[in-house]
Amino acid sequence: MNQVYIQPNEWSILEEGFDAEMVKSSESLFSIGNGAMGQRANFEEEYTGPTFQGSYIAGVYYPDKTRVGWWKNGYPEYFAKVLNAPNWIGINVLINDEKLDLHTCKEVLNFKRELNMQEGWLSRSFEAVLQNDIKIKVDTKRFLSLDLDEIGAINYSITPLSNDVNITYIPYLDAGITNEDTNWDDQFWDVLQVSQDNHQSFIEARTMKTHFYTCTFMESKIFIGPNEIITNCVNEQSNNYTANKYQQEIKKDQTYSIHKFGGYVVDRNHHKDELVAAAKTALDKAVSLGFDALLAKQKEAWAKIWSMSDITIEGDVKAQQGIRFNIFQLNQTYLGTDASLNIGPKGFTGEKYGGSTYWDTEAYCIPFYMATKDQSVARTLLEYRYNHLEKAIENAEKLGFKNGAALYPMVTMNGEECHNEWEITFEEIHRNGAIAFAIYNYHRFTEDYTYIPEKGLEVLIGIARFWHQRVNFSTDKDKFVMLGVTGPNEYENNINNNFYTNYIAKWCIEYALENIDIVKNDHISDYIRIKEKVNITDEELASWKNVADNMYFPFSEKHNVYLQQDGFLDKELITVADLDQSQRPINQKWSWDRILRSPYIKQADTLQGFYMFEDHFSTEELERHFDFYEPFTVHESSLSPCVHSIQAAKLDRMEQAYTFYLRTSRLDLDDYNHEVEEGLHITSMAGTWMSIVEGFGGMRVVDNSLSFSPKIPKGWDSYSFKVNFRQQVITVNVSQKGTQFELEGTKEINILVNGEQVTVSPK
Amino acid sequence: MNQVYIQPNEWSILEEGFDAEMVKSSESLFSIGNGAMGQRANFEEEYTGPTFQGSYIAGVYYPDKTRVGWWKNGYPEYFAKVLNAPNWIGINVLINDEKLDLHTCKEVLNFKRELNMQEGWLSRSFEAVLQNDIKIKVDTKRFLSLDLDEIGAINYSITPLSNDVNITYIPYLDAGITNEDTNWDDQFWDVLQVSQDNHQSFIEARTMKTHFYTCTFMESKIFIGPNEIITNCVNEQSNNYTANKYQQEIKKDQTYSIHKFGGYVVDRNHHKDELVAAAKTALDKAVSLGFDALLAKQKEAWAKIWSMSDITIEGDVKAQQGIRFNIFQLNQTYLGTDASLNIGPKGFTGEKYGGSTYWDTEAYCIPFYMATKDQSVARTLLEYRYNHLEKAIENAEKLGFKNGAALYPMVTMNGEECHNEWEITFEEIHRNGAIAFAIYNYHRFTEDYTYIPEKGLEVLIGIARFWHQRVNFSTDKDKFVMLGVTGPNEYENNINNNFYTNYIAKWCIEYALENIDIVKNDHISDYIRIKEKVNITDEELASWKNVADNMYFPFSEKHNVYLQQDGFLDKELITVADLDQSQRPINQKWSWDRILRSPYIKQADTLQGFYMFEDHFSTEELERHFDFYEPFTVHESSLSPCVHSIQAAKLDRMEQAYTFYLRTSRLDLDDYNHEVEEGLHITSMAGTWMSIVEGFGGMRVVDNSLSFSPKIPKGWDSYSFKVNFRQQVITVNVSQKGTQFELEGTKEINILVNGEQVTVSPK
Repeated sequence: MNQVYIQPNEWSILEEGFDAEMVKSSESLFSIGNGAMGQRANFEEEYTGPTFQGSYIAGVYYPDKTRVGWWKNGYPEYFAKVLNAPNWIGINVLINDEKLDLHTCKEVLNFKRELNMQEGWLSRSFEAVLQNDIKIKVDTKRFLSLDLDEIGAINYSITPLSNDVNITYIPYLDAGITNEDTNWDDQFWDVLQVSQDNHQSFIEARTMKTHFYTCTFMESKIFIGPNEIITNCVNEQSNNYTANKYQQEIKKDQTYSIHKFGGYVVDRNHHKDELVAAAKTALDKAVSLGFDALLAKQKEAWAKIWSMSDITIEGDVKAQQGIRFNIFQLNQTYLGTDASLNIGPKGFTGEKYGGSTYWDTEAYCIPFYMATKDQSVARTLLEYRYNHLEKAIENAEKLGFKNGAALYPMVTMNGEECHNEWEITFEEIHRNGAIAFAIYNYHRFTEDYTYIPEKGLEVLIGIARFWHQRVNFSTDKDKFVMLGVTGPNEYENNINNNFYTNYIAKWCIEYALENIDIVKNDHISDYIRIKEKVNITDEELASWKNVADNMYFPFSEKHNVYLQQDGFLDKELITVADLDQSQRPINQKWSWDRILRSPYIKQADTLQGFYMFEDHFSTEELERHFDFYEPFTVHESSLSPCVHSIQAAKLDRMEQAYTFYLRTSRLDLDDYNHEVEEGLHITSMAGTWMSIVEGFGGMRVVDNSLSFSPKIPKGWDSYSFKVNFRQQVITVNVSQKGTQFELEGTKEINILVNGEQVTVSPK
Repeated sequence: MNQVYIQPNEWSILEEGFDAEMVKSSESLFSIGNGAMGQRANFEEEYTGPTFQGSYIAGVYYPDKTRVGWWKNGYPEYFAKVLNAPNWIGINVLINDEKLDLHTCKEVLNFKRELNMQEGWLSRSFEAVLQNDIKIKVDTKRFLSLDLDEIGAINYSITPLSNDVNITYIPYLDAGITNEDTNWDDQFWDVLQVSQDNHQSFIEARTMKTHFYTCTFMESKIFIGPNEIITNCVNEQSNNYTANKYQQEIKKDQTYSIHKFGGYVVDRNHHKDELVAAAKTALDKAVSLGFDALLAKQKEAWAKIWSMSDITIEGDVKAQQGIRFNIFQLNQTYLGTDASLNIGPKGFTGEKYGGSTYWDTEAYCIPFYMATKDQSVARTLLEYRYNHLEKAIENAEKLGFKNGAALYPMVTMNGEECHNEWEITFEEIHRNGAIAFAIYNYHRFTEDYTYIPEKGLEVLIGIARFWHQRVNFSTDKDKFVMLGVTGPNEYENNINNNFYTNYIAKWCIEYALENIDIVKNDHISDYIRIKEKVNITDEELASWKNVADNMYFPFSEKHNVYLQQDGFLDKELITVADLDQSQRPINQKWSWDRILRSPYIKQADTLQGFYMFEDHFSTEELERHFDFYEPFTVHESSLSPCVHSIQAAKLDRMEQAYTFYLRTSRLDLDDYNHEVEEGLHITSMAGTWMSIVEGFGGMRVVDNSLSFSPKIPKGWDSYSFKVNFRQQVITVNVSQKGTQFELEGTKEINILVNGEQVTVSPK
């Protein structure tokens, strides 16, 4: 465990005491978001110490010119960057003309920060002794409204403790921001207009190249004690900045507060010429409600989210805090209301990775959103890929594929690939399989078949075509082989016959064939439309089938396991346990060739296949493969521990399952990988949810009904979670004594518990 | 064939007619150099059309900050750039106040350019009609002196053809230059001082970071007709520029000339504080000799080079021009006098690739320099690597190797690696083998063993240690395997058990063991010194031997060939002949994954091993492997055709050998790869020499004597070459009727001709 400064608490993330070393980590951990925007937990007042300023708007990105050592044909021309947006949270503070700055003041006392996950707000309080020896107390609270998702609100209060003082609040908007993560130190924003109107301020700005129009706005209210005061303010303005100055003599122990309302309106939701008007409307609504009423609505909105998605754990406060942090961050990142958005791997907490959408969405996030939201949310995520099908076909064409073959990008914002390492961009193609699998998973869970004839089948056909062309026939092996791929284990590049990739390719083709048949028989008008559009013939389908029937899978008779790839047994098979600990993490200690030559596995690869296609393999087979591969797995991807936790639980290895669970659920809180300051690992948080629900709870969908095999870690008294299964919500409560199921709704439901049929009636 | 504008001529490269489209290509093709400096054939007068300005000083480079998409541990922090140096050739010309500029003038007539390879100069002549309707004739001649290698000289003459005119010459020095090839648009030079002294001008400049101190200088003389005139000149100067203005009324048909002398002095040869003084000395010497006397010396110097290195071809002027162009460029690039220099792949003709030294030097260039120069030149090239041994050990340490293992860099200026693609930097490790092979080759050719105990053995030990650690034991194969390499065929990356790499690794270990034994027995004091320094033990040597004895080589029983790497037979084995021509060159048409999956071979790989270790394999084996691999070879590396030409000749396939020969010898002249404007392929030119001497001439060293198996292409009347073998020069003249040998020197020599012993006596 690498950091321990976060205080254990069931509902909050708490920091006590000010440590400048931890500022950037805390800025990540205390990030807030509302699906439409989000920001790192930067201080409102100026801070001249090391900080990573970040405020982000969903869907607003920039195509940064690609930086690459050696260009290869087919590389994308840009790398989409999550874009640091104009800062609206800033409030500079002067105390008798001295700027409040925790980096330069004489002393910071009683510093506390709380991210209240139950109610969805961030607060901070401290006492500061300034260079002028004045001592003040500061209390702030901030949230991004779920109700008015263009609005954020701040309550910033100062109480002089030592003297009567003159306090100046300077709330401002600043569009002179840059990205931490730029390739060429470019400016990304054109500021179009800075304006003020009746105490409201606006900066209209447009992203360069992508031309997203935005308006950043603010309005402030001033209070002494509980009473709003009407005060004159002085305006300051430049070509990318606007500020107001509110100056006031404040007596010792009196509290001087500013309520600042701000946020963004964007042209995804409004006409670009009406952004200032839209901003006024949003501001007027927020200001007329006022900070406290808006906060009350925030608590209600979060209560509603928690009522469906909360997981409780009794008897292990760190585990409880961990799972809630994961669920909270997922909900801060993506709420499923906009089909053009997706779940970025860093959410609104940082800029690393760029792009927004990885295969993480399909492989890890969809189960969480299916089970904790209305099923329309998962369907929206599927449609995101349907909407990108043409781009995926273009992407495949760039790589030489034909006839409507689709290769979905490794990383994307708008359907175009924006990643450029050849071994990933061109070779980590298993991502295509996850996109097909998500369609299957959605249908399995929701029983909603309509998506497939309406949209999904076209995606399945494009993907099947890709696999069909991507293999070649090996006369040597008398089988179809797949050369030159990178599997989920990115510590192998350009390998041949990766078991997982070959397996999912075969499955994709078979699943596409199966659904072509169903649609042909049961959705004839859709079938005619699709057949005309994509021009499938019986010969083509026969050729697909030939590939699926004759796919090669490397297998070791000696070890009785499928091999992760051709030649795996040539490696020096020293387990992780026998590896010198000083060499870890190997991705920070070893050169790339050494990693590639080694047997070490970054994340579940063969075992990822056993997870996704669990019912294709016996438990004995799983055990054999788990015992063969896990000892070589270094889990240096955030997506690794959750799959292993689920499989360990299935194999009744609860201690190991629990260890993996802790690692996934507290990855960021405890900063296992020494990088939390760059932002949080949002998508792997859905894997944490799976570790409890699918791992400990053993939830599956079997023969069209929910099935559970509940287990519980030794140290827990009990845990509970809810699942929204086909419009019915079932609560599962597992304790050391047994499992209880509760059902909301009106009709009873049949489930399987440890293989036995059980009927649950509404409570 | 892609361009045909170069006129065939035995001794010159000729261009007739001005074509702005060809300016950049010609700037490469007509480049001049003298081993110490060189420059592209840029015009002296201003040219505002597309041009690639380049002037380079041997050994003066810049560590440009590496640009890479995704950083990997062990990547070098910089990429050494051949550095564009201050321009000293510039002479702006005003005709009645109109600037002479071939891009903007009304008409260019009778444009001719000649690179005279026999005498080592570049000339240009043309008539131009200016916008002011004045017609002038221009004649220029330029060379870089071999005698005074800090000096270049230009004779620039103008004859007004239509009117009496006012002509102004403005010779200048300009340090405000940049590289075409910069990663970050950085400036690379700090200009320290611009000064003038008595008609001599100087710019002292220092490279940033590397701190090479240089002084660029010039002095000019003015002539009307044959007579020097003393004229006033006006000086112009800025912080990185200095110029003189010589203005003169010139009558129609009178010739007005400027002789400009310029060049560089550098702190490799002079103290950095004495560079201006050194420049003065060089200038005084050159100016006192004058242009014509300096040119006469140039002709003599080149005659001396040609007397040893010329290859004549009768009956095929394009083949003759090709081979002389290759020999000329090699001699322009490297003369073997300075152990800190090496043979850059683009010489002084461009900036691409950066760095100066690749494995090309050992694998392709050393045979040429051994046979056409004094053997000290080849030894100097070996010493270059000895001097970098410590850096090679450090380089290996960065990648996790221990105990003095040495990995020579893929690309270097000073011994440090400066390339960053993981599949090359970390995996194209066969380069290490070529460095050991060059030591073997040198000893085989020269019989000079002294290099090995003095220096070479330490290199051999470092290399053997690297291979010993780079393999691992495969329990599955019960052999040592080498995983994760890139062979000479860079169209395969991260492959296992590349035949060539495994073979040379085994050979390196065995050769090191053999020489340790020899040195131990015959050079005991060297042995003691080395043993103390590198600490070899009997156990270590036994462990090496175990690896060499048990190295794995992939082999196909079915095809009876060694496989290029594991899994080669899984590919779709469609030959190049059956590949759609529109798909070629595949490196411009295909994405990288497609190239990697394909069977196509960029350059000799398995066959490179058969070339280097020819006596380990029978001719039948060679034929079988040639027939298996050549049909999959696309020869998209400049280093490929020569090896194939030699092997085709050995297999009596003279038509194929000739086709390969033309491709290698006229690669740049005919611009096969559409890229000559970026510079010439200098190192592969040595391969062209090998194609004739080792291919057609069949020259080898067998049992300590020279051996020949002369063959001749159908269309040639005869060809001849010379070989400097152990201080004796033998001339081989092959005609359709037979072969004649001539010997310079005093004692007779025994050679093998088609396997028969022949004694050649001095003529």
